[in-house]
Amino acid sequence: METDNLSAVLHSQGDLRLEQRPVPEPGPNEVLLQMHSVGICGSDVHYWQHGRIGDYVVTKPMVLGHEASGRVVKVGSAVEHLKVGDRVAVEPGVPREMDEFFKSGRYNLSPTIFFCATPPDDGNLCRYYKHSANFCYKLPENVTFEEGALIEPLSVGIHACRRAGVALGSTMLICGAGPIGLVCLLVAKAMGASKVVITDLFPERLAMAKDLGADFPLLVKRGNGPQDLAKNVEGMLGAQPHITIECTGVESSIQTAIYATRPGGVVVLVGLGSEMATVPLLNAAVREVDIRGVFRYCNTWPMAIAMLASGKVNVKPLVTHRFPLEQAVQAFETTRQGQGVKVMLKCDRNDQNP
Amino acid sequence: METDNLSAVLHSQGDLRLEQRPVPEPGPNEVLLQMHSVGICGSDVHYWQHGRIGDYVVTKPMVLGHEASGRVVKVGSAVEHLKVGDRVAVEPGVPREMDEFFKSGRYNLSPTIFFCATPPDDGNLCRYYKHSANFCYKLPENVTFEEGALIEPLSVGIHACRRAGVALGSTMLICGAGPIGLVCLLVAKAMGASKVVITDLFPERLAMAKDLGADFPLLVKRGNGPQDLAKNVEGMLGAQPHITIECTGVESSIQTAIYATRPGGVVVLVGLGSEMATVPLLNAAVREVDIRGVFRYCNTWPMAIAMLASGKVNVKPLVTHRFPLEQAVQAFETTRQGQGVKVMLKCDRNDQNP
Amino acid sequence: METDNLSAVLHSQGDLRLEQRPVPEPGPNEVLLQMHSVGICGSDVHYWQHGRIGDYVVTKPMVLGHEASGRVVKVGSAVEHLKVGDRVAVEPGVPREMDEFFKSGRYNLSPTIFFCATPPDDGNLCRYYKHSANFCYKLPENVTFEEGALIEPLSVGIHACRRAGVALGSTMLICGAGPIGLVCLLVAKAMGASKVVITDLFPERLAMAKDLGADFPLLVKRGNGPQDLAKNVEGMLGAQPHITIECTGVESSIQTAIYATRPGGVVVLVGLGSEMATVPLLNAAVREVDIRGVFRYCNTWPMAIAMLASGKVNVKPLVTHRFPLEQAVQAFETTRQGQGVKVMLKCDRNDQNP
Amino acid sequence: METDNLSAVLHSQGDLRLEQRPVPEPGPNEVLLQMHSVGICGSDVHYWQHGRIGDYVVTKPMVLGHEASGRVVKVGSAVEHLKVGDRVAVEPGVPREMDEFFKSGRYNLSPTIFFCATPPDDGNLCRYYKHSANFCYKLPENVTFEEGALIEPLSVGIHACRRAGVALGSTMLICGAGPIGLVCLLVAKAMGASKVVITDLFPERLAMAKDLGADFPLLVKRGNGPQDLAKNVEGMLGAQPHITIECTGVESSIQTAIYATRPGGVVVLVGLGSEMATVPLLNAAVREVDIRGVFRYCNTWPMAIAMLASGKVNVKPLVTHRFPLEQAVQAFETTRQGQGVKVMLKCDRNDQNP
Repeated sequence: METDNLSAVLHSQGDLRLEQRPVPEPGPNEVLLQMHSVGICGSDVHYWQHGRIGDYVVTKPMVLGHEASGRVVKVGSAVEHLKVGDRVAVEPGVPREMDEFFKSGRYNLSPTIFFCATPPDDGNLCRYYKHSANFCYKLPENVTFEEGALIEPLSVGIHACRRAGVALGSTMLICGAGPIGLVCLLVAKAMGASKVVITDLFPERLAMAKDLGADFPLLVKRGNGPQDLAKNVEGMLGAQPHITIECTGVESSIQTAIYATRPGGVVVLVGLGSEMATVPLLNAAVREVDIRGVFRYCNTWPMAIAMLASGKVNVKPLVTHRFPLEQAVQAFETTRQGQGVKVMLKCDRNDQNP
Repeated sequence: METDNLSAVLHSQGDLRLEQRPVPEPGPNEVLLQMHSVGICGSDVHYWQHGRIGDYVVTKPMVLGHEASGRVVKVGSAVEHLKVGDRVAVEPGVPREMDEFFKSGRYNLSPTIFFCATPPDDGNLCRYYKHSANFCYKLPENVTFEEGALIEPLSVGIHACRRAGVALGSTMLICGAGPIGLVCLLVAKAMGASKVVITDLFPERLAMAKDLGADFPLLVKRGNGPQDLAKNVEGMLGAQPHITIECTGVESSIQTAIYATRPGGVVVLVGLGSEMATVPLLNAAVREVDIRGVFRYCNTWPMAIAMLASGKVNVKPLVTHRFPLEQAVQAFETTRQGQGVKVMLKCDRNDQNP
Repeated sequence: METDNLSAVLHSQGDLRLEQRPVPEPGPNEVLLQMHSVGICGSDVHYWQHGRIGDYVVTKPMVLGHEASGRVVKVGSAVEHLKVGDRVAVEPGVPREMDEFFKSGRYNLSPTIFFCATPPDDGNLCRYYKHSANFCYKLPENVTFEEGALIEPLSVGIHACRRAGVALGSTMLICGAGPIGLVCLLVAKAMGASKVVITDLFPERLAMAKDLGADFPLLVKRGNGPQDLAKNVEGMLGAQPHITIECTGVESSIQTAIYATRPGGVVVLVGLGSEMATVPLLNAAVREVDIRGVFRYCNTWPMAIAMLASGKVNVKPLVTHRFPLEQAVQAFETTRQGQGVKVMLKCDRNDQNP
Repeated sequence: METDNLSAVLHSQGDLRLEQRPVPEPGPNEVLLQMHSVGICGSDVHYWQHGRIGDYVVTKPMVLGHEASGRVVKVGSAVEHLKVGDRVAVEPGVPREMDEFFKSGRYNLSPTIFFCATPPDDGNLCRYYKHSANFCYKLPENVTFEEGALIEPLSVGIHACRRAGVALGSTMLICGAGPIGLVCLLVAKAMGASKVVITDLFPERLAMAKDLGADFPLLVKRGNGPQDLAKNVEGMLGAQPHITIECTGVESSIQTAIYATRPGGVVVLVGLGSEMATVPLLNAAVREVDIRGVFRYCNTWPMAIAMLASGKVNVKPLVTHRFPLEQAVQAFETTRQGQGVKVMLKCDRNDQNP
């Protein structure tokens, strides 16, 4: 039996270590996975650098990682839909209770949900990891492990675009061309959005966005007035966008989002900013521009796998760096420096392929 | 032919006069109405006192009044569904263009809409008034003219509750027990809301709300903390409300609305405050509490008439004062002083009944 | 420890026996209930008389009963929201798997769901019964055990009216004034339906419907033409109804439902008829009258409790007969003969109150 | 001034003539169009061959044609958004009344709507035609006249797919690979459908469907059992489809549609069959498979233009034949014989380009 379970453990703010943990034993409804590819998310880095995100505080050692895929190596006694050898993508949030949120299809809002690498729940940046079988989704042969791992960030885009009501012919503004802005762009296009303006402070991020299908990259400078930017967007599209997805969390960008959106439209807030924000709420209200937030996602994995398998979305260009698990600290440092888009850790010593 | 068309005309800020205007001639798709009952709205008083609301400025004399009912006295050549003698309620907004908003069922958002007593469009606080026949709705015998006039404020409540998604068993917070808070309360209860907390600064308004069906009146004091108030509301209901309807426009009350609402719930903004507001947008976003505004209403008159005819809603207690049209200035002064709930002007010299 | 667990067990078609079963032991997420009131449903009688409903066949002894309420007498180790002594209503369907249906809020469609008194799953017409704590809902003090048991049939009405989109001011046709037609009527009125026509073959059932709030009882005779009946309904309401809820399953009544409904409206099929039906599908299609079925219900108990606690719905008149558990066979015979509306079995020897 | 207004006029069943009509004068809200491309629809041919469709009967001469585009040559006095020279697509249905259907965004259901080439309303298969300016939509430079004319059949696909709720990752069955099945396919793919099975009796139609993006063509033979076909579809997709769009109107195909669709899914009926149909309604009802019809379309032109301009949909391969207006009878004969997919008539003597 395999006993090497090297794991990337955050002990406290700034203290990230690679260390051995016992290989876990799956329960009746669980599977044991040999992890293959795990992406690094901004939140992982944030926990590492600050030891907390809002009310979630790292008070005891926690394995990082929640953008993951792997291979089933052991199957719980009650599991029927998976077998040893299956390649799966891992949905990191698993409801613990059948509460009102779960029953009504919004399990992401369940306050007691388990979630990989949100304190105190361990993540899956390690060799072996057990997970609820109902939240492991078999990958078709033509979907790679890395695509499987990328379903997690892609899910943020799916959930945001669904909450926004993106439909055939929608015109859109996406604020911010980082990884989340880019997945929103990919998903929006796959849902039929016709024209998308995307903003960023950095030309190279806009260039990437253009490669991925953005129609109008719009370079923003600190100090640009929100109403002026809104006018620019309207000029580019020939009309105000139906939908704006705000991915920066910056107050002035939220203001731009509201001013820019068409009456009867929707602003979705994906970026997380400061607790209080000063915004033109009256302007939104009297034009019936709805403001909707997102918290993670729900019911996205099957749809994402369908998209990837049918080639409707190409996420492969998002992976710009790869490191073996043993070099996790260097990988985190690379992400912290903002290099590239997505850094992928390879957890299987014998298969470091995409 | 009748020639007395005494009209309440606002010439400019502070200058409200009763004067004669010609009796209009209805076009092919219009009807001429002998006005019966016209309620005074806060916006009428605001135009009188300030000469403007936001970008709408009184630059030439304008007849006031838009909460109205009357009797058909002349019928345009193309009108088929109304005849002389019909008692009708008047929907004050009439789209001028078949634009994207009208075509998709949200004609209230049409930028070129005609709207009674919004500059420069004349209202109907007068003896005779012509209106699009398609926006005059026949009243059943068991619905009075005053109930017909009250459909306008009731429509604000209907539109707000529909935008909120009020459903059977909804628990709610309504901020503000003025006329709009009260119509939201009446409509919410008719839609099946189970428990409603309503707040106000004045005990006598809360007493009225309790009479109209509020379950938990909550007296608010200036300086109460939004998070404390949110906790109070949760305590009263035993859980956070599904829906909050904010009718005050006050910043701290909007903050309370957000903190108080359950994850996955909705805050509807009805009250109009200042252009910019500082609010806990992050708190709303990560709990997926949606923020939705309202602009007037659409598709409410038939539903409102059905409600009134079937006795599902009793709006009669809202009328606390009546004046003949000739005393319009005193009536406006009464409203300005905040006396009672709804002041009704009686425009028919021969029938001053409710 | 209590050992009397008298249970109403169906051994095979026609063979219903009262016999002792062991008192069960609740698992970690379960509670043990001392049953108080259990209503008899048409499906219970159907299993007794025919040994099957469609593909569900009684192949081994099964406890009957699924409209139930009781008192918590033992609490599983992981249960936090209930304690000994709590009075609860029992939702009989409990998903066994976190499948796509459960995850998306439609757990009633989950093919592996546990459901009381649907073969092979035991029901709760007995003294002691264990159930998933997450599907037991605490009753407020002002809601009786019998009201708690009636939440099950009421849930059919809630689910049907929600699927129909009943809203404030809806006009409706309900086909059939049996127990299910009556709960649909009660729920529709609580949701704001303004005018309801209800049909039946029996005047006494229509009289009951009128007492419960139906506006227009319509006596139907075998042989009435569907299009003629549709015209009658239109005449009574002054226009075609927005919504029709069909509770008979009879082919001619489904035809009436389609012809009667307004363009853009909805027909909900609640009654179960024969496998194939000949209906004017073209008429429905070109008028965009949607046809929607219902399978049991989901997410209804909390809403139903809110309605009952706030007095928005009065289900008490539905209970027309009561029997102690020991007389279960007589009770079933009474239901089989179609006497009254709802027959209630009293399972607690020491408390036979409503 | 131009006086040649050659028009394709249907005098009565079988009697189609090319004859001169006066050039019409646009009213204040209308534009006069020089027609460019007009497609022939199955309904045009049906009126020609049978003189009626259902209750719509040709009782006086009527110009045919309703899939059209042209150039503005005269503008009514009140028209602001169009000018002489604009290239436009024509939406053939124009509501005459602001009734409940129009006000609520479903103007296609308005019983008094004007509709090109539905008796007694004239169509636009002619040289010059006037139309409501609000229902003429300016074409971007990169959208051809023929694409503009094809927006009409494309709109049927858009409306059907919207009514079906096609979303990212939807799996689908489309019954029938004629022109309507093909536009449903194109639209479904543009909305993000991942896998589509399409059926037909003719291999060459399936070959065309495959070229246009269908994943699984399924050749059907008369006599194939609906339940067997449903099993085939499930086998191809690996699970039952979320959505079925039925485009044949054939009873057995409607049966297949119901059996094939996943619980909680949707069947949309686009094909028109006989008045009464015998279908497994119980099967649909207890699995909550909704059945929805479509009547023409509403709110589709702007979205369709956005799709065409952004290249999300390629309709050009649908045009298989072209004739000058003078050869309209030969063109109709070609369509009647079922040759090709779409036959286009070229109405501008000086520009017969696509």
